[in-house]
Amino acid sequence: MPRYRLTLEYDGTGLAGWQRQANGVSVQELLETAFFKYCQEPVTATAAGRTDAGVHALAQVAHVDLERARDPEEIRDAVNFHLKPAKVAVLEAAEAPADFHARFSATGRRYLYRIVNRRAPLVLDRDRAWAVSRPLDAEAMHRAAQALVGSHDFSSFRDSQCQAKSPVKTLDRLDVARAAEEISIRAEARSFLHHQVRNMVGTLKLVGEGKWIEADVAAALAARDRSAAGPTAPAEGLYLTGVSYGAR
Amino acid sequence: MPRYRLTLEYDGTGLAGWQRQANGVSVQELLETAFFKYCQEPVTATAAGRTDAGVHALAQVAHVDLERARDPEEIRDAVNFHLKPAKVAVLEAAEAPADFHARFSATGRRYLYRIVNRRAPLVLDRDRAWAVSRPLDAEAMHRAAQALVGSHDFSSFRDSQCQAKSPVKTLDRLDVARAAEEISIRAEARSFLHHQVRNMVGTLKLVGEGKWIEADVAAALAARDRSAAGPTAPAEGLYLTGVSYGAR
Repeated sequence: MPRYRLTLEYDGTGLAGWQRQANGVSVQELLETAFFKYCQEPVTATAAGRTDAGVHALAQVAHVDLERARDPEEIRDAVNFHLKPAKVAVLEAAEAPADFHARFSATGRRYLYRIVNRRAPLVLDRDRAWAVSRPLDAEAMHRAAQALVGSHDFSSFRDSQCQAKSPVKTLDRLDVARAAEEISIRAEARSFLHHQVRNMVGTLKLVGEGKWIEADVAAALAARDRSAAGPTAPAEGLYLTGVSYGAR
Repeated sequence: MPRYRLTLEYDGTGLAGWQRQANGVSVQELLETAFFKYCQEPVTATAAGRTDAGVHALAQVAHVDLERARDPEEIRDAVNFHLKPAKVAVLEAAEAPADFHARFSATGRRYLYRIVNRRAPLVLDRDRAWAVSRPLDAEAMHRAAQALVGSHDFSSFRDSQCQAKSPVKTLDRLDVARAAEEISIRAEARSFLHHQVRNMVGTLKLVGEGKWIEADVAAALAARDRSAAGPTAPAEGLYLTGVSYGAR
């Protein structure tokens, strides 16, 4: 069966996350249903990252196997037609080798977390960012974040539901930058623990508002205990922005 | 009565535009209703630009007169509380001189028009940009746009409903720039005719897709006839991004 690689954008608002489940509509279910309408065959979609409820994607990657070869541009346009009204869109479809696996072949994942730091509630960015009204020191957040870059036991930032075999991950990048009222946090790693990015962001916010000093982040990491770190930042600020394959 | 200047953000989706009217909910009505809940007095809001249905604002400016002096930060927070769930937010409230008039004191208005130029339908930018699937040449659009900069009779870009006394306006800036799949069109002038920005964008799109050559835009302007220019671009791509007061 020919395999296709899909690049997907989605608005996670009101969705149950990537993975199909009994309660709530998932991205996987919307996509597989659209494929069924198009191909009249059951299709299973496998994604690079199983994003949580409310989390968005600018460029999630998934793969599907179809019974026969089809034109990639036709796949993109036909599936998008059946996805309307669109919470999910196929940005690109491409032929993929039979051994390509969206999840297991991935060598890097990139996330963006958006904070809008202002008193007024969000309007145009509603459900698209975390609204934080207390002024945050983004430079202090960035300095504190550097303690998390590298290979570490991230137990302090790991959700209790996490199914990873090991809490050790290598974080390649964790940058915090402000542009006017918006604070962007960019994280890159081969892979992440469940809720790792949101737990890191919730912890860095404590530094940004002055409740923690920068060294408290390194101490929380060293504790290897979820209760030592800060709360989980809300889902609506998180975007899966890209997935890498092959040599990094 | 003390006068206050308000800076407003709003999501025009589903709203009837700035101005209060019998059919549909307007920004003005939402804002005045929130003021009434806060102050228990009838308040009239006057805006710099009477944006159309579906048009957004990142920084509209309005003024209101209140019966007694109030703390500007309290005004901002209290009105935002009563505006929830927020299609409109007060970004800033400030005391203003009695002779400040949001509309008549304004010396410049700035608009952004967003086009997302891709095959896939919009998801995260749904109702926030014009989705154009045919590839557009943004550099050709920019060059053609320069024929519109300066003082001209803009009758070709003027809606039949326009109430301005004269069709002559001075366009200070009309820049078209691409960043990846997004094309941003930025327009600045002391004031604009009704639908002028959207009619200019709809015309430049004809150049971008190669249906028109650049010189056709200058010819459309010279015709002083609405039927000589292109169609009106949709409201959802347009943002009022700022208003200037005083010396420009």
